[in-house]
Amino acid sequence: MIDKKLRIVPLGGLGEVGKNMMVYEYGENILLVDAGLMFPENDMLGVDYIIPDFQYLRDKTQWVRGIVITHGHEDHTGAIQHVLELINAPIYATPLTRGLVENKLSRGGMLSKAQLVTVQAGDTVQIGPFSVEFFHVCHSIPDGVGLGIHTPAGLVIHSGDYKFDHTPVDNWPTDYARLAELSEKGVLALLADSTNSDRPGWTPSERVIDPAFQEVFRKAKGRIIVASFASLISRMQQVGNAAIQHRRKMAFVGASMVENAKIARKLGYLDLPEDLVISLEQALKLPHHEVVLMSTGTQGEPSSIMGRLSTGTNRQFDIIPGDTVILSSHPIPGNEESVYRTVNRLFRRGATVIYENIAPVHVSGHASQEEMKLLLHLVRPKYFIPIHGELRHLYQHANIARQVGMDDEHIAVIENGQVIEFDQGQMRLGKRVPGGYIFVEGSSVGDIGPSVVREREALARDGFVLVSLSLDRNDYSLLEEPDIVTRGFTFPRNGDDLVSSLGKMVKDTLQVDPFASQEELEQAIKTFLHNKTKRRPMVFVTISRV
Amino acid sequence: MIDKKLRIVPLGGLGEVGKNMMVYEYGENILLVDAGLMFPENDMLGVDYIIPDFQYLRDKTQWVRGIVITHGHEDHTGAIQHVLELINAPIYATPLTRGLVENKLSRGGMLSKAQLVTVQAGDTVQIGPFSVEFFHVCHSIPDGVGLGIHTPAGLVIHSGDYKFDHTPVDNWPTDYARLAELSEKGVLALLADSTNSDRPGWTPSERVIDPAFQEVFRKAKGRIIVASFASLISRMQQVGNAAIQHRRKMAFVGASMVENAKIARKLGYLDLPEDLVISLEQALKLPHHEVVLMSTGTQGEPSSIMGRLSTGTNRQFDIIPGDTVILSSHPIPGNEESVYRTVNRLFRRGATVIYENIAPVHVSGHASQEEMKLLLHLVRPKYFIPIHGELRHLYQHANIARQVGMDDEHIAVIENGQVIEFDQGQMRLGKRVPGGYIFVEGSSVGDIGPSVVREREALARDGFVLVSLSLDRNDYSLLEEPDIVTRGFTFPRNGDDLVSSLGKMVKDTLQVDPFASQEELEQAIKTFLHNKTKRRPMVFVTISRV
Repeated sequence: MIDKKLRIVPLGGLGEVGKNMMVYEYGENILLVDAGLMFPENDMLGVDYIIPDFQYLRDKTQWVRGIVITHGHEDHTGAIQHVLELINAPIYATPLTRGLVENKLSRGGMLSKAQLVTVQAGDTVQIGPFSVEFFHVCHSIPDGVGLGIHTPAGLVIHSGDYKFDHTPVDNWPTDYARLAELSEKGVLALLADSTNSDRPGWTPSERVIDPAFQEVFRKAKGRIIVASFASLISRMQQVGNAAIQHRRKMAFVGASMVENAKIARKLGYLDLPEDLVISLEQALKLPHHEVVLMSTGTQGEPSSIMGRLSTGTNRQFDIIPGDTVILSSHPIPGNEESVYRTVNRLFRRGATVIYENIAPVHVSGHASQEEMKLLLHLVRPKYFIPIHGELRHLYQHANIARQVGMDDEHIAVIENGQVIEFDQGQMRLGKRVPGGYIFVEGSSVGDIGPSVVREREALARDGFVLVSLSLDRNDYSLLEEPDIVTRGFTFPRNGDDLVSSLGKMVKDTLQVDPFASQEELEQAIKTFLHNKTKRRPMVFVTISRV
Repeated sequence: MIDKKLRIVPLGGLGEVGKNMMVYEYGENILLVDAGLMFPENDMLGVDYIIPDFQYLRDKTQWVRGIVITHGHEDHTGAIQHVLELINAPIYATPLTRGLVENKLSRGGMLSKAQLVTVQAGDTVQIGPFSVEFFHVCHSIPDGVGLGIHTPAGLVIHSGDYKFDHTPVDNWPTDYARLAELSEKGVLALLADSTNSDRPGWTPSERVIDPAFQEVFRKAKGRIIVASFASLISRMQQVGNAAIQHRRKMAFVGASMVENAKIARKLGYLDLPEDLVISLEQALKLPHHEVVLMSTGTQGEPSSIMGRLSTGTNRQFDIIPGDTVILSSHPIPGNEESVYRTVNRLFRRGATVIYENIAPVHVSGHASQEEMKLLLHLVRPKYFIPIHGELRHLYQHANIARQVGMDDEHIAVIENGQVIEFDQGQMRLGKRVPGGYIFVEGSSVGDIGPSVVREREALARDGFVLVSLSLDRNDYSLLEEPDIVTRGFTFPRNGDDLVSSLGKMVKDTLQVDPFASQEELEQAIKTFLHNKTKRRPMVFVTISRV
């Protein structure tokens, strides 16, 4: 007998619950919402990116009726090729989101495998037993949607990433009317974005950036370089508008910035006159006061354009005194050090650098506390499940729900892999399933586990020492001086002494016990080095008996 | 002939200029201000801490007439034992600062070497040709001072770390009158703290924390655990005051917290009734609503008390549902990830966690923009040199000085190691001297350089592969299967295949070229592994011809 409860399962997303993927399951039918990736934290050494652990879906792949992508950001789209390796189901997305997903899939050679379906905000699409209404939401990328998911067990609202911007750059506010309509039908559960639940008040409108840009464009005597996220199409529009007013030409720099601008212009999400946009090569030939460059690299990664500009290692152009750099972005948590290091270096090269702390050149794309209250009042759900945030954000979002009158019994703060079940209009916690994440590194998916990362930590802390010994096969005497190689470990200032005394210690050990095993020698060397240096490098001994 | 210019040189301090040490030099006389350490950035792998590079002082040690410590924080005191190994000069400090420095020196077994002189805010002390006036400043530790340094070349004001708190917890505001008096005498140069130069307005008084504490103490039903910096004596006072009002006993947790509280109480900087303070052991036996614990570990370090509480690995006690944890602190830049990971884990264990974003349970100890303007107006210096900040902060502080009417010719934004000279009342840039920092790691000072850190980065990213080969010494044939050891590198899921195909590749290579060198084999293995895995581990081959 098929169990006809509605099940909801958040998957993946590092500390952030349901950020990368949500599973909606009714009987033998699954609707997936989003398929994103996360970037590793500072201590996840060597990892390229992280995707949800799909184990829960592995024996249910044939139940998946569709994949809905709410908007075009990496943390909602970036794992799509990994999902398609497992699951064959249509992907539903609005035009811009579809364009960005197509671009990603075609770069990975996966476009032919994908079955893409364009939807418009306002559409209702039947996906298995789920009738999904797409409603427009404002976010830091255009064409984002939230979902009204009609299921046999009741209506669920999935907010997606959203803010309530009354004056968005594309003049397309969040669809309050549709939310109110859905509310009229009676909402079983609301799942809503918690990213900014610890920010009081109301997230400023994207429009507040315009006066700050005006001020910078008015004062700048040389080139202006605006660094932003390649997905921030509205920011491109704002820079373009300022460029027109201040008689500058605009060039995009960085592959993803160029590609996304092209897709957004083609699909009509970015309205820039033909004669405004020029190539970087053309821009570099113009007088400095006639140019604005719009570039990627806001996170200070050494290999990014801003990173290279800050160290004077960029290929096509350099920072010159008189340049004004605007970082129209916010450091992703964990990147603060590298972002500010880049800012300092840009100053050192003679640029004037304007960043968030100096002037309002960036705003968040996520709702703050008052917007969260408004959403709760608009939707009036029976149950509330905060998602898209770390546990601390979910608890704070739950507090906000309490403030607007919900009680603890109707709020569930859950972690990835925690199944929520709805049966006869009642919510309860189900079992926990694997809901974590797996590391992707080079061409390897999921092979790198915590033990390897711990080995890397040890190597990163103290390096290693490799001692190769050649012994006489008959009398076990040492035939040559021990060969000592180190990486990531240095001998102290009077280092030659320590190398030779390490060599001597090994020789002495072998004299006393010619049969000393590899493990015994390694242990003796570890102890010796720790006594001498207070450090604990990995130690390897190879012995060949010749 | 002795050159009688006043020279000022900022030393050390990672990106922060003059944070750890300032050199004031007149003829053959040097006054050192502060001797601090910095903690490494996330990518300085394995480094314990960082101290200024003292190279500039190395051949002038006998010129040093005294060392003044402005306040008791690590970034101003933590390198004192390294300085004393080089320099024999009296150390001047106010009573609390002296107490903390003594404690540090006696732990390092260096107390007998040090010649400590107690000064009081308000004192004037002759140190060589420098007549140094100590004036009280508010900061996040009591008994901080700024300096009026009378030199034959003119009067220099060194602000130290400061804020203008009108209602500090110890009721001892910054000494405006003394600043005004100094100003009357005509100030050649002001060197002032730039830490918060990108914060508009006025840093809130420490008192704003009291209502937030009241609210938390009023609501908490179980234990309260306040985590803060061990140097934040005023915060201990505030927690103590709240504890008395809400009839809780108070216990200090963590060696540095216990020690500092003891020193501060003994010297009269912390006023807690005898019957308020109990030991942790006693506290753990009391009913939960009668206890507040004050602990270290605000930065989420896994080995700290809060880190261990969050993972359930603390020895003496655990988090229990109903605990309220207050993080009365701010993440040090670079620590955001680990702090928030700890917060999430504390929530998971059932604690209610209150941190800066949720309620005003912490304020900065540094002046904001309006305070900086006030200081400039009070002091009216001829020249202004922003210090104690990254380059971006110094530029912003220079902007603030321009806003209050100074011109570019009278402002110097400099980096560590840049000598500033004053001659006949005129400022000019001198030469650049080594002003960087050196790494301390275990018992090694300055042996770890960037190349070793780069090796560690490579090891941390991809690990290494070690292949040991035994060849016949006559016909160079392989005597055993290649021995393959890896650390920090894993073979993909079907890993055994890759190990055996790597072995096979090595054998094939040797078959084609039995004389292949170690380097050639290493290169072949690197290429093979990169083709197969897209990763670049370090590769080592050892060959023994048997």
